Amino acid sequence: MTETGKVYLVGAGPGDPDLLTIKAHKLFDQVDVVVYDRLVSDEIMNLVPAGTSCISVGKQPRFHPVPQEQINDILVSLAAEGQRVMRLKGGDPFLFGRGSEEAAYLHANNIPFEVIPGVTSASACAAAVGLPLTHRGYATGARFITGHCSDDNDLDWDWKGLSDPNTTLVVYMGVANLIQICTRLTENGLAESTPVAAINNGTRPDQRCLISSLGAITGDVAKCNFSGPVLFVIGRVVELTKALGFEHERISGDLVEERESA
Amino acid sequence: MTETGKVYLVGAGPGDPDLLTIKAHKLFDQVDVVVYDRLVSDEIMNLVPAGTSCISVGKQPRFHPVPQEQINDILVSLAAEGQRVMRLKGGDPFLFGRGSEEAAYLHANNIPFEVIPGVTSASACAAAVGLPLTHRGYATGARFITGHCSDDNDLDWDWKGLSDPNTTLVVYMGVANLIQICTRLTENGLAESTPVAAINNGTRPDQRCLISSLGAITGDVAKCNFSGPVLFVIGRVVELTKALGFEHERISGDLVEERESA
Repeated sequence: MTETGKVYLVGAGPGDPDLLTIKAHKLFDQVDVVVYDRLVSDEIMNLVPAGTSCISVGKQPRFHPVPQEQINDILVSLAAEGQRVMRLKGGDPFLFGRGSEEAAYLHANNIPFEVIPGVTSASACAAAVGLPLTHRGYATGARFITGHCSDDNDLDWDWKGLSDPNTTLVVYMGVANLIQICTRLTENGLAESTPVAAINNGTRPDQRCLISSLGAITGDVAKCNFSGPVLFVIGRVVELTKALGFEHERISGDLVEERESA
Repeated sequence: MTETGKVYLVGAGPGDPDLLTIKAHKLFDQVDVVVYDRLVSDEIMNLVPAGTSCISVGKQPRFHPVPQEQINDILVSLAAEGQRVMRLKGGDPFLFGRGSEEAAYLHANNIPFEVIPGVTSASACAAAVGLPLTHRGYATGARFITGHCSDDNDLDWDWKGLSDPNTTLVVYMGVANLIQICTRLTENGLAESTPVAAINNGTRPDQRCLISSLGAITGDVAKCNFSGPVLFVIGRVVELTKALGFEHERISGDLVEERESA
């Protein structure tokens, strides 16, 4: 009888292979197969040793992604054959990664698994563009949400709570619903002058960072022709990039109210 | 004239040296001096090569920590002498790490610096105890706050917004203000039955995880004699640890309302 394998649910971080953890890096030499998402960078996939199988389950332009149920089954089948499987996800598996759905399915099927955290895009992009997520007098905390929803319904969020000017709001995958997000936040009291950063392909060689405001970001992003993932950071901390010596793209002029940095 | 050095503001992650990034790990061999916090684990400090200076600026029991202004000056002085300085912080430098205060001071003093993100404790602890921060039907996002405040004032937070049952609330350094936090959240509508996890020394060999509820956690924590950092995770996602096959400590019995996992 074949010995059961194991699945490693691994956070690949934001794209820069140097931002992988040591633990993830060591695993490349210890697994039989890598099941990976679209958001895992080519530079990271180049670390997979020759002879290790790779299975893409990510969405390609004009093609549908592999449905989650099928990904779950792939992982169980491979491990049941005795294989050691690296399930590689962009960012961190337990923050918008659907890693927990896979973990629950693996556990229900008696497949051993381990979760290896990764640097989430918010931390990585913040470091790359000189944008602290918290800072005394600017933000007491940070809130992470995803703008992606599985259907065409309106986003069912606590908009009043999200419109707290003292909390940095980070939106993952927010391009498609950007108009709705900005409109609801301003309707709920967040000033149109609130600064916003849009970080495209953060930590990758083609990284871009656009600085705008809640009132102007939708129009500005439309002019940018971003391709690849975009992370939005909304809040007063965006003003700090200048005090940290970083210069970024601006389209709508200096709409952002300047304040003295702490 | 001495060439100016450089400061690397580096996230050390939660404690497990295997959760350092490749980038941070490589840097140990490239710097002249390491300036480190109390929250950086001994296992990580053991990676510093012999011959590299180490300066502790962390708080020791019954001793005051080095004030932030003095840390800033130490970093500037070392770099001005031409040294390559690793400023090593627990977790991620731009999320409650005061890394941005150091970065702003370095920039104001014309000292080159680079920020290297780390795995934040929320991601690391979540992975280590089988507790997803987001999960369909349980939490649409996550919010990170710190329970530590610089003075004895009450925490000046948007308590109503924080009491959103559909958002996972992660509290860093919350032990000292736990009573206040739990009282305010329940006053603002978050059910006393809301599950809470207290993760002590997450990812380290002496890791503990206590499962309780918003109404019982304060009493339960008092019985635990935790030593070392504690991260609190408040929200329905805490129920999922069982569905992921993890068993944790419980003191107050099964107060947590059980639901079917997704």
